[in-house]
Amino acid sequence: MAKLTKINHIAVVVPDIDEALKFWRDALGIAVDHVEDVPSQKSTVAFLPVADTEVELVKPTAPDTGAAKFLAERGGGMHHLCFEVDDVAGMLADLKAKGIRLINEEPIELPGRKMAFIHPKSTGGVLIELYEIIK
Amino acid sequence: MAKLTKINHIAVVVPDIDEALKFWRDALGIAVDHVEDVPSQKSTVAFLPVADTEVELVKPTAPDTGAAKFLAERGGGMHHLCFEVDDVAGMLADLKAKGIRLINEEPIELPGRKMAFIHPKSTGGVLIELYEIIK
Repeated sequence: MAKLTKINHIAVVVPDIDEALKFWRDALGIAVDHVEDVPSQKSTVAFLPVADTEVELVKPTAPDTGAAKFLAERGGGMHHLCFEVDDVAGMLADLKAKGIRLINEEPIELPGRKMAFIHPKSTGGVLIELYEIIK
Repeated sequence: MAKLTKINHIAVVVPDIDEALKFWRDALGIAVDHVEDVPSQKSTVAFLPVADTEVELVKPTAPDTGAAKFLAERGGGMHHLCFEVDDVAGMLADLKAKGIRLINEEPIELPGRKMAFIHPKSTGGVLIELYEIIK
């Protein structure tokens, strides 16, 4: 059975990366690893490692994504929780067999990882992302 | 200067612990460390360690808490993010000097820890808890 191994990141949607860094970096004191445009997610992301996980600050760059809608509706905040699993396809099959609603029934393959989202209707309102890191 | 060391937990507010465990424990496969009544927080909490952090499932047990209001308004979901710091009083002083709005201007002392909340108005909508673990 597929196994969940760690929390990869907590994603926080923000309207402006520089403004957000005034709190997360300058006030809380978390060092920024890097800031990157992520065209596949239509966003700019700041990566702030904290011990063996990280906070990702996500600024939507197009209006047609879930993160952009979340920003428009709520003004930002915690958006999703990402767990690493050793076998994302296996985990999706397990979850589907248990009646869990998935946003992605098959893993999406990206450079360095496979990923999928679980629907918040089946998690008690938490959008959950699954990553399988490809080494 | 006070330093943030790790993510202690991510708190998820749920209407029912047993129902929530059907997803988090039985479907995702995260082992439950224990479930505990926490009268100081007017809640029942299930602790689910994941690597060096944990997910806490929080069921409010009284209607007059922030978690209970969050549950009534949103039906549950990610409620707050808790960071461990080496000196919570020092961190609160640093944050206050930087103009960050605090819910608790002084640490609250509980068995085994000192804690305080930062107001989501100053964090981009994320309720942040700070813990200093007392060994």
